[in-house]
Formats: sequence, C-alpha cells, structure tokens
Amino acid sequence: MKSFQRLVMSLKRLPGIGPKQAERIAIYLLRSPQTEPRQLVEALEEAKAAIQFCPQCWDFTDQSLCRTCASADRDRNLLCVVEEPQDVAAIERTRGYKGLYHVLHGALSPLDGIGPERLRVKELLDRVQRARPAEVIVATDPDTEGDATALYLRQLLQPLAIRITRIAHGVPLGGDLDYIDERTLSHAMAGRREL
Amino acid sequence: MKSFQRLVMSLKRLPGIGPKQAERIAIYLLRSPQTEPRQLVEALEEAKAAIQFCPQCWDFTDQSLCRTCASADRDRNLLCVVEEPQDVAAIERTRGYKGLYHVLHGALSPLDGIGPERLRVKELLDRVQRARPAEVIVATDPDTEGDATALYLRQLLQPLAIRITRIAHGVPLGGDLDYIDERTLSHAMAGRREL
Repeated sequence: MKSFQRLVMSLKRLPGIGPKQAERIAIYLLRSPQTEPRQLVEALEEAKAAIQFCPQCWDFTDQSLCRTCASADRDRNLLCVVEEPQDVAAIERTRGYKGLYHVLHGALSPLDGIGPERLRVKELLDRVQRARPAEVIVATDPDTEGDATALYLRQLLQPLAIRITRIAHGVPLGGDLDYIDERTLSHAMAGRREL
Repeated sequence: MKSFQRLVMSLKRLPGIGPKQAERIAIYLLRSPQTEPRQLVEALEEAKAAIQFCPQCWDFTDQSLCRTCASADRDRNLLCVVEEPQDVAAIERTRGYKGLYHVLHGALSPLDGIGPERLRVKELLDRVQRARPAEVIVATDPDTEGDATALYLRQLLQPLAIRITRIAHGVPLGGDLDYIDERTLSHAMAGRREL
C-alpha cells in the first residue's frame, strides 16, 4: 500500500519517531474515525497560519511582536541567548529572569553541517549592535554543540565591548536545558560568570 | 499561544507520544518550511482516502479486497486471528504461513472497557460460520489481554466444532508479537497446539 508507506515515511521524519512508532501512529490514525485526523490537520494548519517568528527575538508568537519583547516590564539591558523556543519557556518558569531573549534555533554542529548561517546569529549581531544591552547571557546547552556555540558567540560579540556571560554549570553536563528543574536552572542563571 | 497548545494537545493524543515529545514535534513542524507539514497533511489525507478495511479480514487495504484475501495461492482452510495489522505483517515476514488472517483490532481488556463489541469478533464468528476453515489459529499477544482474548475466542468458536489452536509460547511471555524476530515467530507458528 503505497499511500500507507508514504504516511509512515512522513511520520518517521518527525523528531524522535522511529520506524515502529511511525507505523503505530499511522495505523492509529487510519483506524480512528475521521474526526481525529481532521483535528490534527486543522490544529497543524491553524498553528502554521497563526504562529510566526517574533522579528526581534525569533521565538514563536501569534502576535506581531512576542509577549516578552512587547512587555514594558522587561529589563532591556539583559539579553539571554538560547538554542530553542523550549529553552525560553524553561527559563520563564524559573520566574527569576526579567530580561529579553534571543532564540538561535539550534546550535553550531560542524559534523551535521550546521554553521552560523543556519542559526539566527546574524540577527543576534545586528540586534546587539542596534540595542546595545549591558549584558549578553549565553544560555546554550552544556554539551559539545552548546559549548562551541558559546565560544563562537564570545568571539563574535567581543569587539562590541559588551559584557558576555554564560549561565553557571550548575546544570548537569551533557544535559538538556529543557529537562532541568526550575531551582537548578534558577541557580545557574544567578551564578553566571564572564565568558 | 492557544493554537500552539492545541497542536501540542493533538499530537499528545497519538500513541506513544508524551508531552515533551509533542512539544518538540510541534516546534519542529512550526519551524520547518511550509512544504514539510504540507507533505504530512497530504500523506495523511491521501492515506485516509485510499485505505479502508478489507471487508473479509479487516486488515487495511487500498483495494476492495486485501492482497491476502484476494490471492488464489492462500490456504483457505487456515485462519489466523491477530490483534493488529502489524501482526499480519510480522507473520507474513516469516514466509512460513500460507493461510488467511482475521484482524481483531485490539484485545479484550475489561479494565480499559474493551469488550468483544469493540473488536471484530462478531465478524470473525460470522466468517468462521460461513467459510468453515479447518483450523482457526489464535495468534493474540502472549500477555493478559491476549490470553483473555484467546480463551474468549475458544469459548465462542467451540460450538462450531472446528480445530482451534494457539501459536506456541516460544514467543517470550509479556512480549509483543510485532517485535519478535522471524525465526522465533516461525517456530511458534509451527509449534501451535490445541486451545
């Protein structure tokens, strides 16, 4: 059944879904009444239509400017650089950080062919030059790619004579920012040091 | 972002997808260019339109009768009852079985409120009465639900005076038919015994 194989292939392309799970999901969707796949399709199309990138921080938003960027209560002197939109949500849950964000949408990974041009790095440089925050906090993941990205950003931003810090390695090495409990992450934010 | 939450909720309903993975998939889909989600939606809609149940064995098919049921080479005296479409594919991969199939689309599970009326049990009874195969091979999974289903089917089919067997428990207990290697499964099919 070619159309079945095509559906399985499409599902397999999603992050974290292996061939077995793709097959199970395909069978689940084929078995369920028409309303269930319809709902998924509609939710996807609606989200795709409603949500775009915030032109300032590159987080997702359904407004012309995201909530954080648009808020008058945020400290415009602090700019926290993260890899993923999930990381913004994780730091927001700590309720300890009141600055702005910049989402790179990934980390440098030469082995996977991901260079700075694949990330929102140019936008970060433009923004820092324009807005001149007092401090840029690099909150990339504490793994190889995150470390490489942090070092690259330090080199890139150093000429601008702005304070560049990285969140403290209180977060477990090799870990994933998005999975860490609020207190550890809060602590790591507070203990940030010069990069 | 309500439309984001709605997309995550829809994804979370898929089998084996937790809240974190649903979020990652949603972000992946929002980030990728329009073609990728489009492809997924099209593959899903195409599969939903093209694929239906085979009216004889209840496996999925894009024909009016599935390949196995339509084939002249299959032994119509053997009828193998399985829980899921994946199980048909698993047994087919052994290349040792030449009979027909019947897909129940689940197993009895009183705790989850799944009784015989939720499965293709009535269709099985009708079919066995009509087609009168020499033997019904019960190949439900070797777990609580699969055992309960096998015992229920024995009770149901016994009055028809047809040989009822169950595949040998060479397959590891608590396992899942779909994950077992071809040789073990082949062996279990060959070593089937009276139920």
